[in-house]
Amino acid sequence: MTCASAGSVGEEARVAELVAAACAGDPRSLARLISLAENASPALRPVMRAVAPYAGHARVVGLTGSPGVGKSTVTGALVRAYRAHGLRVGVLAVDPTSPFTGGALLGDRVRMAEHATDAGVFIRSMASRGHLGGLSVSAPQALRILDAAGFDVICVETVGVGQAEVEVASLADSTLVILAPGMGDSIQTAKAGILEIADIFVVNKCDRAGAQEVVRDLRTMIAMARHREGDWKPPIVSATALTGGGIDDLVGRLDAHWAWLGKSGELDRRRLARAREEISAIAIAALRQRLGVGLPGDSRLDDLAAQVAAGKLDPFSAADELTAG
Amino acid sequence: MTCASAGSVGEEARVAELVAAACAGDPRSLARLISLAENASPALRPVMRAVAPYAGHARVVGLTGSPGVGKSTVTGALVRAYRAHGLRVGVLAVDPTSPFTGGALLGDRVRMAEHATDAGVFIRSMASRGHLGGLSVSAPQALRILDAAGFDVICVETVGVGQAEVEVASLADSTLVILAPGMGDSIQTAKAGILEIADIFVVNKCDRAGAQEVVRDLRTMIAMARHREGDWKPPIVSATALTGGGIDDLVGRLDAHWAWLGKSGELDRRRLARAREEISAIAIAALRQRLGVGLPGDSRLDDLAAQVAAGKLDPFSAADELTAG
Repeated sequence: MTCASAGSVGEEARVAELVAAACAGDPRSLARLISLAENASPALRPVMRAVAPYAGHARVVGLTGSPGVGKSTVTGALVRAYRAHGLRVGVLAVDPTSPFTGGALLGDRVRMAEHATDAGVFIRSMASRGHLGGLSVSAPQALRILDAAGFDVICVETVGVGQAEVEVASLADSTLVILAPGMGDSIQTAKAGILEIADIFVVNKCDRAGAQEVVRDLRTMIAMARHREGDWKPPIVSATALTGGGIDDLVGRLDAHWAWLGKSGELDRRRLARAREEISAIAIAALRQRLGVGLPGDSRLDDLAAQVAAGKLDPFSAADELTAG
Repeated sequence: MTCASAGSVGEEARVAELVAAACAGDPRSLARLISLAENASPALRPVMRAVAPYAGHARVVGLTGSPGVGKSTVTGALVRAYRAHGLRVGVLAVDPTSPFTGGALLGDRVRMAEHATDAGVFIRSMASRGHLGGLSVSAPQALRILDAAGFDVICVETVGVGQAEVEVASLADSTLVILAPGMGDSIQTAKAGILEIADIFVVNKCDRAGAQEVVRDLRTMIAMARHREGDWKPPIVSATALTGGGIDDLVGRLDAHWAWLGKSGELDRRRLARAREEISAIAIAALRQRLGVGLPGDSRLDDLAAQVAAGKLDPFSAADELTAG
């Protein structure tokens, strides 16, 4: 017991040191803290306790869209623009497709290179490590760590459409939905869900054929949605992020959205919802752990699954037995 | 109490009638049962009890890929091919992007038209209805209902990449990953995760420029992966689904995969894993319900979220308080 307590005190001290170093701008300490989040390390508890009072100041910008629309390029252009304004920028590239590989985004090292010597930029990709809760637990924690470390703007970039978009939207203060012409990713296909999460639409690669059609379709879609007095109506920004075209406009629109968030009370509502999601995700993971639900080596679940697969038991009765224990 | 019991007996009788009608081939009864699954209706419990002994015979084929690669067209071509073999085919189009809209896939009615008079085909799209557990609970139940209703092949089609792919793969006996040239959806981007879930790759629209490059890149990727003796090595099918090109080859590859699944014992393993996932999802939803975690109107969670958002509490301590109750 004494040993354990001593160990725990040592751990607390080590964590306090790491947090202090990260907040003082040391990128290595910051990277180590985020790895703790990514791996759902037990050491994350004291980290979260330590950073709680310092978070809540960063603006969180979510970037989402199908593969190939140029999310990384838009993120890169935004980073440069914010740096030009003297703001510190963190980038979290969340990859929900890697529960299998545990790998990071390929473009990461390339992107790092441009800002390698700039202490005002921190870029990190995160994959789901297969632990209970996955990115729904670890991404908000990484975000809070970057926030506490004093970054003014944090860009959260995600791959793919669907659930991942929803999760990014729930993390971000402002969500950019990025589209590009000629992606086969027609507005019609994308319609369900996209209008609801987009605070700003970015039509990237707008020097290419078909860009005007994408803008026009978006405009029609936005016009058809009901916006009440005082609602935020998502603007459309035409951009060629590769050459920086349209990025000043985008920064302006983001500023306008930020102002609206504060004025309308929506910022508080979104951040409250974010905290609710985060607590829920941790609580659910804890409950699963406690019951052994979904954990490998849970023979009770295996037995029940065998009965369900054989048609001897229905899944509801199986779940009842599992949660009764 | 007597009333409730009588009501419950009436309910059981009504459910038994619906299930019997659906199994006898009545599409309306089938549609109503699937709506019960989609809405997480309490009436689903007796339905699942009733269908449990009849499920487990259908072959489940999952189809996934980015928007625009032609998933619906490939599904349609497969349906025609299997119908030509005299098999009954169900199609479940799962749309993970609609927790917001609750809408169905747009192409649904169009696709229905072709098979409207064919009792051997049942097409249905499902959206997440925002209930606890969402599609992870309702999709496997809809699948089991179609299975019990005697469909020989069930195609489960999903929109998007990422988490949705993973979920489709966990539902299916055989998973098709569909790609197309010129989608900006480069193999490199898609790499993480795709190799692991694909049983068969379909390069659709192979009459277009760039198709050979997609095939070549896939071939390189497959060659780099380690396959042990007896492992299934995913074949690549070149198709132009719109005109039916390559579909016979695809059906042949699916048959080969089906044979391998049985011989290798992988079918049992996959179905066991599927049952485990399904039971877990129901159990987790039940736990959340019991604790009020993530439910609207849970003021305890709201209070804790407010403290976390204000930096007065860390999310772990908040989750502890929530689950302690």
